[in-house]
Amino acid sequence: MSFNTFGHTFRTTTWGESHGPALGCTVDGCPPNIPLTEADIQQWLELRKPGTSKFTTQRREADLVKILSGVFEGKTTGTPIQLMIENTDQRSKDYGDIATSFRPGHADIAYHLKYGHRDYRGGGRSSARETAARVAAGGVARQVLAALAPDLKITGYMVQMGTKTIDRSRMDLSTLSDNPFWCPDPVAAVEWAGYLDELRLSHNSVGAIIEVVAEGVPPGLGAPLYAKLDTEIAAAMMSINAVKGVEIGEGMAAAMLTGVENADEIRMGNDGPRYLSNHAGGILGGISTGQPVVVRFAVKPTSSILTPRETVNLQGEEVDLITKGRHDPCVGIRAVPVGEAMMACVLLDHLLLDRAQTGGQRGTIG
Amino acid sequence: MSFNTFGHTFRTTTWGESHGPALGCTVDGCPPNIPLTEADIQQWLELRKPGTSKFTTQRREADLVKILSGVFEGKTTGTPIQLMIENTDQRSKDYGDIATSFRPGHADIAYHLKYGHRDYRGGGRSSARETAARVAAGGVARQVLAALAPDLKITGYMVQMGTKTIDRSRMDLSTLSDNPFWCPDPVAAVEWAGYLDELRLSHNSVGAIIEVVAEGVPPGLGAPLYAKLDTEIAAAMMSINAVKGVEIGEGMAAAMLTGVENADEIRMGNDGPRYLSNHAGGILGGISTGQPVVVRFAVKPTSSILTPRETVNLQGEEVDLITKGRHDPCVGIRAVPVGEAMMACVLLDHLLLDRAQTGGQRGTIG
Amino acid sequence: MSFNTFGHTFRTTTWGESHGPALGCTVDGCPPNIPLTEADIQQWLELRKPGTSKFTTQRREADLVKILSGVFEGKTTGTPIQLMIENTDQRSKDYGDIATSFRPGHADIAYHLKYGHRDYRGGGRSSARETAARVAAGGVARQVLAALAPDLKITGYMVQMGTKTIDRSRMDLSTLSDNPFWCPDPVAAVEWAGYLDELRLSHNSVGAIIEVVAEGVPPGLGAPLYAKLDTEIAAAMMSINAVKGVEIGEGMAAAMLTGVENADEIRMGNDGPRYLSNHAGGILGGISTGQPVVVRFAVKPTSSILTPRETVNLQGEEVDLITKGRHDPCVGIRAVPVGEAMMACVLLDHLLLDRAQTGGQRGTIG
Amino acid sequence: MSFNTFGHTFRTTTWGESHGPALGCTVDGCPPNIPLTEADIQQWLELRKPGTSKFTTQRREADLVKILSGVFEGKTTGTPIQLMIENTDQRSKDYGDIATSFRPGHADIAYHLKYGHRDYRGGGRSSARETAARVAAGGVARQVLAALAPDLKITGYMVQMGTKTIDRSRMDLSTLSDNPFWCPDPVAAVEWAGYLDELRLSHNSVGAIIEVVAEGVPPGLGAPLYAKLDTEIAAAMMSINAVKGVEIGEGMAAAMLTGVENADEIRMGNDGPRYLSNHAGGILGGISTGQPVVVRFAVKPTSSILTPRETVNLQGEEVDLITKGRHDPCVGIRAVPVGEAMMACVLLDHLLLDRAQTGGQRGTIG
Repeated sequence: MSFNTFGHTFRTTTWGESHGPALGCTVDGCPPNIPLTEADIQQWLELRKPGTSKFTTQRREADLVKILSGVFEGKTTGTPIQLMIENTDQRSKDYGDIATSFRPGHADIAYHLKYGHRDYRGGGRSSARETAARVAAGGVARQVLAALAPDLKITGYMVQMGTKTIDRSRMDLSTLSDNPFWCPDPVAAVEWAGYLDELRLSHNSVGAIIEVVAEGVPPGLGAPLYAKLDTEIAAAMMSINAVKGVEIGEGMAAAMLTGVENADEIRMGNDGPRYLSNHAGGILGGISTGQPVVVRFAVKPTSSILTPRETVNLQGEEVDLITKGRHDPCVGIRAVPVGEAMMACVLLDHLLLDRAQTGGQRGTIG
Repeated sequence: MSFNTFGHTFRTTTWGESHGPALGCTVDGCPPNIPLTEADIQQWLELRKPGTSKFTTQRREADLVKILSGVFEGKTTGTPIQLMIENTDQRSKDYGDIATSFRPGHADIAYHLKYGHRDYRGGGRSSARETAARVAAGGVARQVLAALAPDLKITGYMVQMGTKTIDRSRMDLSTLSDNPFWCPDPVAAVEWAGYLDELRLSHNSVGAIIEVVAEGVPPGLGAPLYAKLDTEIAAAMMSINAVKGVEIGEGMAAAMLTGVENADEIRMGNDGPRYLSNHAGGILGGISTGQPVVVRFAVKPTSSILTPRETVNLQGEEVDLITKGRHDPCVGIRAVPVGEAMMACVLLDHLLLDRAQTGGQRGTIG
Repeated sequence: MSFNTFGHTFRTTTWGESHGPALGCTVDGCPPNIPLTEADIQQWLELRKPGTSKFTTQRREADLVKILSGVFEGKTTGTPIQLMIENTDQRSKDYGDIATSFRPGHADIAYHLKYGHRDYRGGGRSSARETAARVAAGGVARQVLAALAPDLKITGYMVQMGTKTIDRSRMDLSTLSDNPFWCPDPVAAVEWAGYLDELRLSHNSVGAIIEVVAEGVPPGLGAPLYAKLDTEIAAAMMSINAVKGVEIGEGMAAAMLTGVENADEIRMGNDGPRYLSNHAGGILGGISTGQPVVVRFAVKPTSSILTPRETVNLQGEEVDLITKGRHDPCVGIRAVPVGEAMMACVLLDHLLLDRAQTGGQRGTIG
Repeated sequence: MSFNTFGHTFRTTTWGESHGPALGCTVDGCPPNIPLTEADIQQWLELRKPGTSKFTTQRREADLVKILSGVFEGKTTGTPIQLMIENTDQRSKDYGDIATSFRPGHADIAYHLKYGHRDYRGGGRSSARETAARVAAGGVARQVLAALAPDLKITGYMVQMGTKTIDRSRMDLSTLSDNPFWCPDPVAAVEWAGYLDELRLSHNSVGAIIEVVAEGVPPGLGAPLYAKLDTEIAAAMMSINAVKGVEIGEGMAAAMLTGVENADEIRMGNDGPRYLSNHAGGILGGISTGQPVVVRFAVKPTSSILTPRETVNLQGEEVDLITKGRHDPCVGIRAVPVGEAMMACVLLDHLLLDRAQTGGQRGTIG
């Protein structure tokens, strides 16, 4: 059984392979009467699309989205929205070796073992191209959020590339689009460019850590116990290709704190409780508190590299493999808009879930 | 909407509050003809139950499980299995203050905001007592795994308590039950005892990191893309109370690796591919490879402490709160058997899912 | 895989066997702050419970429901509600023959073929006793509906027993509780008593048709295309033991109508559209229109009868079987409150689903 | 919330409107290594496509299916299969009146009330054109069934049109394609042609009853209690446009039978139990017995007719409405291949579900 759907009420089913004719998704459960055009979605796809700098794959895809259903006269109808992106720059000949040998650290061998038959071209279904469909779905989610939770704002950026981290004292989110890394630290961004160039030219790749913050999240979102908001965000991020770790708030570092330190103390603000810190990442007991929701996730380095690595082939022969083709030296870069899109989808899903159960009513304080 | 069910084919629905008459779970989708007695489940509950050392809550619960359905003449029938554990040592009077004030860092305020009405006694539904039901479900899963995947072995242990980590060169899993921490490093275990005692006596608590390893996992488990095995394990662990970070294999550290380093190179072994390293934690493309599956998760410190913390009450007044009652100074300790149980449930679920889609057939190499 | 859960947002998971220690259900997703006591639920269980007349099984069960979780200080908390009913009058010795022979027309043989191992006592999981859990869940649903849709009223009754139908010109719903059949036609009720007595004394049983009508259903409920309201109601009724046919509105007779006849013409009433007929049973395109929702379902005759029938046993020997034990001569009678309960659950589920997607907003006319 | 997905393990999500650019479906969970080409699917679409006789809509659609994903080198890969059918013969100008007036007996008004905004052209999402996607999904299911259950055979036909029924003594399934009605009674087929012509020319339409029989269904399929095989088939059929009643085996007539009559007595055959009758329609306790599975469903008459009917418009004015456009005088005709497709999907879904839980093992008799 495969699962290509995420979300409970705002449900996205993605489909498509890297080198097939097209890829896309069906967004089901979208509220009606939401303004939606292809341009509304395209703006987000532009941020993820390949070939925009030397630090991403040189594959040239326009990534133009078409709305095939669910929208009439510029507004959603409540019926399923089909979004299709045609593939136009496949170069399948690059993948001759991959057809019969398994890239170490890549999904190749696992798909072969499970299914016995796979579209190996460009990684097929396991390619990061699938994330275009997520970004498209996220574009729909953002339109709905703009209507239902207009104060909600989602921002993603890279906080670590390989061994290089940002200096949070220099963080300036207004500089994110000034560099090709979504790096909020302008000094680090310069350093990263040299670092990644070196890795790229030495036929290597590197991992990264992305942080996504959602401000203006209404309190009360989350469906304990098995759809706690942190669980859902963790699952959403972990479902992105190459992600191997997820942290909410303090994340793994929470282990090092004492109870005295970790307590996000509370005072009364003008419009309700005001928290003196946010170790919890905006989520307590699986439910949003009104503080910013903060997630970080680690993206492993691209496994498709030009440096030879030891592996085996279909015949069980031991071989050395070099992966040709056009690959991202740091696939984490393009994961930034993907992480934002997943955050938008999860928050909208839970906003809808919450109004199912509570009708959006809130307990009062004071 | 609340979600108290986890799993797709092997589905567990938990219910119950800390101070209600009972708690338990319904296990649905269990294969028939599996030997199952209350004792088979009880052995795992014994490992999690409170009051076994001074390092866990002093609440005395026998945690005796009763099977109310789904088992006939000592074997499962394929119908839902109801497991009930009666609460016997509630001391609700300890919770007077909690009724009207919100513990900082605790689910209290979030539940209040979402639902407006909550069973505050002992944390109600958000209490770690709920994990008893998970351990019971895990006991059922282990019986099924023993029949369907007899080589599969799951082991959990603590690798960090607060700022104290184990020394992996001293790891000896045979010593896990020699100390009250499931600590695999006998030297660290001694140190931790003093460290935690000090914290406890100073009215504080501390976080921890748990690692769970599953050996003998068949290749081919995992349902890409949105039920990738790492996604599912991450969600399972993140759904446990107080967990704020999850890592598969290298986890967050994968960000620091280069593609050359991160490649788990492959050679041919006697019975199939043999990997030279396991950065991936046994999962590639969301599918198990046959290597050990490795997860780590961070548990934040218990928020219920005797040190006063600033907070607000229902009336919106700013108050200082001390949490009385009987609490774990390191709730991570008892999370070890819970993590094992969640791993057992996820792996069984995916073993069943996989035989739905592929019939358990595997691609061949060599 | 087994499925013992129904509903999407208001989800009920039932468990338990006819002769096990108890049966019950978990109701998940219930809105918070709804007044709920055991008495609120018990009143509905009284209507379904066995042994109330000579026309139902003589098994004596008090069917007392206990609320084990999810309710605090008389109101729901939004967490899962566990409802348990203990079995007290099992007489398993009646079932000696059933252990090894398969009742013709009964689930016996199908359960054996599928699972290989079954609790044969009293039909085990396939017993109509399971419907007590549905009625309990329906009791919770009714409390929520009373708060969210106070004008909604659900009424079930029997319109046919065997070959005897009611005369709709004599229908008087105020007489339902005057006879043991929920028969709305007082004249037919008298006739049915003699008819069923004769069947019962001749060691036979008989089928029935139940009609359930929901008035005051808000327009807009239903989730096309695969959770159309008629689909959901049909599935709910077909999931009841022994049901083999379901009709919405005209039902099977819709086949005989022409388009001219079947059109439910519309005029404007004081508060919106007014329909001149209700062939559609209150549902168009899978969505409620505001008209009464009407469903009928057929219950087959009890297969456990004292008349010998040809069958086979576990050893594959051909035998004649008489079913002892205490059985309903017309199991359709007790299906009336069950049908009502399922209707309540489905309507509430869709009311919650609808407010997830549309927020309960409606298109306007005029 | 809308639900455009059906199936549990073999899951189909449909999308598209009558007059949008395209419609289609995503089939997820398909087993890998199944031979599949567009021609394999197209053969079934040919049976449903419009414009093949004067008794169906005169809209001319080639209904050519394209496979956009999930198939590589002629075999399924286990990843989602996207099937797209482009709309080519929309004539939206026919729908001017429909934009603002509600056809009596049609989904128009219900969609308007629920969503406030709808694609009215050709019925939009509520159009029977959506069933093309179901037939395409059914084509995939049939390929998988051919591999996993080669003896399984599904046949649909019409047993009643309006007031005209077939004579079962004349039934000859080899004549189904000799008439435009899938009528198995050659004498009735002639009569029906005249009857429907008359209705059509008098600007009227009529309902129908379809029967679908599946032979060679393995015993053990079905997931009690809330995914009983009869429940699942009923839901599948009821989800088809215009269906208002569903019967399994005896269906509504089961109410008239006594227990003595309804018992499907059992003898031993050469290869297991042999049933002397099939009142149960091949399903007991929600589980297939190995007998033919029999379902009937009633399709109401097309509501779009040229005879004027009283209704209201958006402004709340009372108007008389004639529906222009190209409509089926008996939409039941084209429901025959749709019913077959739904049966194929449900049976495959349950075959996969069953191997998840039981591994396909069966209890033995004799």
